[in-house]
Amino acid sequence: MFLQKIVNSKLGGMLLGYCFARFSFILPVRRVFENDRLLAFHHPKPCYPLHILLVPKEAVCTLADLPTSEMGLLHEILETAQKIVDQLDLPNSGTRIILNAGDYQKVPQLHFHLIADQ
Amino acid sequence: MFLQKIVNSKLGGMLLGYCFARFSFILPVRRVFENDRLLAFHHPKPCYPLHILLVPKEAVCTLADLPTSEMGLLHEILETAQKIVDQLDLPNSGTRIILNAGDYQKVPQLHFHLIADQ
Repeated sequence: MFLQKIVNSKLGGMLLGYCFARFSFILPVRRVFENDRLLAFHHPKPCYPLHILLVPKEAVCTLADLPTSEMGLLHEILETAQKIVDQLDLPNSGTRIILNAGDYQKVPQLHFHLIADQ
Repeated sequence: MFLQKIVNSKLGGMLLGYCFARFSFILPVRRVFENDRLLAFHHPKPCYPLHILLVPKEAVCTLADLPTSEMGLLHEILETAQKIVDQLDLPNSGTRIILNAGDYQKVPQLHFHLIADQ
C-alpha cells in the first residue's frame, strides 16, 4: 500500500518511467515483442486467459502526457497489438485492447492491455 | 438476429461503413465531437454511466483493415478521446478506452468505446 502510494506519486511515476525506459531489459517477463521503442509481454498477474501488456520504452505517465510529436507511438502500439493477435492465430476469438486512465490506471506509465478469453 | 447476421457479413460491413462515411450527419445521436474524419457520440444503449463511441468517417471494418497510410486516424481518435475526457472534467475519475476485435466486435465498423463510471 505504502509502495503503491510512492509509485503513484508524480516523482514515483517519473522514476518508474525512467527505469522502464532504461532497464526494461532486466525485467523477468515472458516477452511477446520488443524493439527500441516498446515492449510487449505477458502480464505477470493476468486477469484474463490471455493478458499481454504493451508498454512504450520512454517515460510517459498517461496518454495526456504524450507529446503530439510522439503520437506515432500510439500507432505503433496498436499496430503491434494487431500483429500479436495475428501471430497468436485468434481470428475467431474475441480480443480487446484497453487503455486505462484516471483512477483506472494503477501504474503511472502509459500502457495498453491486450486481452482475450482463450 | 437475422439483421445482425446481414450486418456482420462482409457485404453488410462494407455497406455499413459506406453509409456511416456518407450519411452519419442524419444519425439521431447526442454528438460530443465531430469533424470531417470522425464522429464521437453518446452510445444510444450505454453499458456504463458514461459511454461514448468514437467512429471514423470512412469504411473500415476492423483495425486490421486500416491501411498503414491511414494510421494517423488512430492518433486522432485517441487524442480526441483524451480531449473529451478533459472537457468532461473527470480528472480523478477512472476512464477507459476500449477497442474490441474478433468476436468482441459486434458492429463491423472500426470504433472505440470511451467509458467511465460517472
